[in-house]
Amino acid sequence: MPLLVVGSVALDSVETPSETRDDLLGGSGSYFSVAASYFTPVQLVGVVGDDWPEEHTKMLQSHGVDTAGLETIEGEATFRWKGKYHENMNDRDTLDVQLGAMTRFDPTLPDNFRQCPFIFLANDPPPLQIGVLEQCSAPKLVVADTMDLWINTERETLLKLLKKIDAVVLNDSEAKLLTGESNMPRAAREVQKLGPSLVVIKKGEHGCMLLAGDRLTVLPAYPTETVIDPTGAGDSFAGGMMGYLAEQDTVDTAAVRRSLAYGTVVASFTVEDFSLDRLANLTREEIDARLAEYMKIVAID
Amino acid sequence: MPLLVVGSVALDSVETPSETRDDLLGGSGSYFSVAASYFTPVQLVGVVGDDWPEEHTKMLQSHGVDTAGLETIEGEATFRWKGKYHENMNDRDTLDVQLGAMTRFDPTLPDNFRQCPFIFLANDPPPLQIGVLEQCSAPKLVVADTMDLWINTERETLLKLLKKIDAVVLNDSEAKLLTGESNMPRAAREVQKLGPSLVVIKKGEHGCMLLAGDRLTVLPAYPTETVIDPTGAGDSFAGGMMGYLAEQDTVDTAAVRRSLAYGTVVASFTVEDFSLDRLANLTREEIDARLAEYMKIVAID
Repeated sequence: MPLLVVGSVALDSVETPSETRDDLLGGSGSYFSVAASYFTPVQLVGVVGDDWPEEHTKMLQSHGVDTAGLETIEGEATFRWKGKYHENMNDRDTLDVQLGAMTRFDPTLPDNFRQCPFIFLANDPPPLQIGVLEQCSAPKLVVADTMDLWINTERETLLKLLKKIDAVVLNDSEAKLLTGESNMPRAAREVQKLGPSLVVIKKGEHGCMLLAGDRLTVLPAYPTETVIDPTGAGDSFAGGMMGYLAEQDTVDTAAVRRSLAYGTVVASFTVEDFSLDRLANLTREEIDARLAEYMKIVAID
Repeated sequence: MPLLVVGSVALDSVETPSETRDDLLGGSGSYFSVAASYFTPVQLVGVVGDDWPEEHTKMLQSHGVDTAGLETIEGEATFRWKGKYHENMNDRDTLDVQLGAMTRFDPTLPDNFRQCPFIFLANDPPPLQIGVLEQCSAPKLVVADTMDLWINTERETLLKLLKKIDAVVLNDSEAKLLTGESNMPRAAREVQKLGPSLVVIKKGEHGCMLLAGDRLTVLPAYPTETVIDPTGAGDSFAGGMMGYLAEQDTVDTAAVRRSLAYGTVVASFTVEDFSLDRLANLTREEIDARLAEYMKIVAID
């Protein structure tokens, strides 16, 4: 089944303890699309400025990503994010954000995207996420991400969105901000009361938690020995997760649990290099081999 | 098989964001002994002062703990620790330490303790740990813990100890301090090069990692919704882990992986109340029921 993603497409500057890189391909939509592309055809909706390097669009297309929904706005610059990672490679500071073309992002879905059954709404403003959802005619699984900014400034609209979706994917800090609850199993239950039956809490290097109905699942991260640039790990996780579910064309909770393992493994590749340099140069065989290794690592019996 | 533990027996004062309690039973030896007692007979070696409440010894004995190695030193006070937990309940500050009787802790093992095959050396000074080990005549599995203080001040002796033991149990921060490596899988490999074939890294609320030979195992913590007092969780983990191995009388690596799950579950009870209030009032049935629940929580397929 095809998978629709609406998200940011960006140029990033990333500073890690050992290296600084500028003008990297980034954005939630980019990471998600390529991560999911190993499983299923992806339809990307996003916006860029007229400074956008065409080579990035070609790379996305080479992964089978349908870029008909990637709009270029003349006279605007592509969204830029600049961040710096701490020594622990888990915490980071945002140093600069230049919204550029994103300020004029008001997507109209191409006709052939509207019937897409699997839908991921990346961390765009909640009114935009709702606007996209209203254009979708046959949703089977709608998953949304959000961020601290919208929890603080668009809470009412975000709460409306949560009532319309099946699943939400949050960082632990966002789950705490949204619910006021610092205990993650409790926070997950509080988020679930706001609407989505599936709640996924991402804990970075500490793995993830799923609340599906009343059943909790907790998985550790893949124990990566090479962490070069953690940018995009969360979106790659969501892409691997939803890519697998779209491929299997199911929202069965056993499949959702398996999808977390795929998301975990795909994200583990992303952090092994800057930008999408590792993520975009994978094979499904490499993903499946690491999944098998991961299953051994988390096996008790 | 019996299980020998040499560790601290203490009176704690604990401050959490919601409550403060004084004069609580604490110490690595106490938590470890009671945790392990649900699996196997425990032999405890430790020291207390003449202010020691006899009721605590009776409680240990009621759990089948052989307290013949618990020495009372007249004219000294029992070791006291005072700590304060941060809002996140994972980080803490030590506010005060009064070593008291611990300064005169130089254990001579009772004769019937010397043949004990399963041995846990809690985080005492490394010269003392080596002194105990030299009194043991039939070790089958020797596991040691340590702490930042000894890594900083007794590194040479600690390195000697590491060459004599089968397994070491460390916090993530201690593993980093010992190896200079902040990536945990790499830190585990570096620790292994120092001697122990089994390396267990405890990550508090984020679970644990085992390196056994060249095989990594990573497990999340049990997702506890009630965290009242995290004191003793690490020692309870070690107690549950070694208790299971002593019960099964094996050091087989499949059993070691299972033992991590037992340690995880036993520790999850400890944090549900102050001191040993929950840990000491368990049944094996409760432990096994939570283990079954935990296995479901970490199951992917």
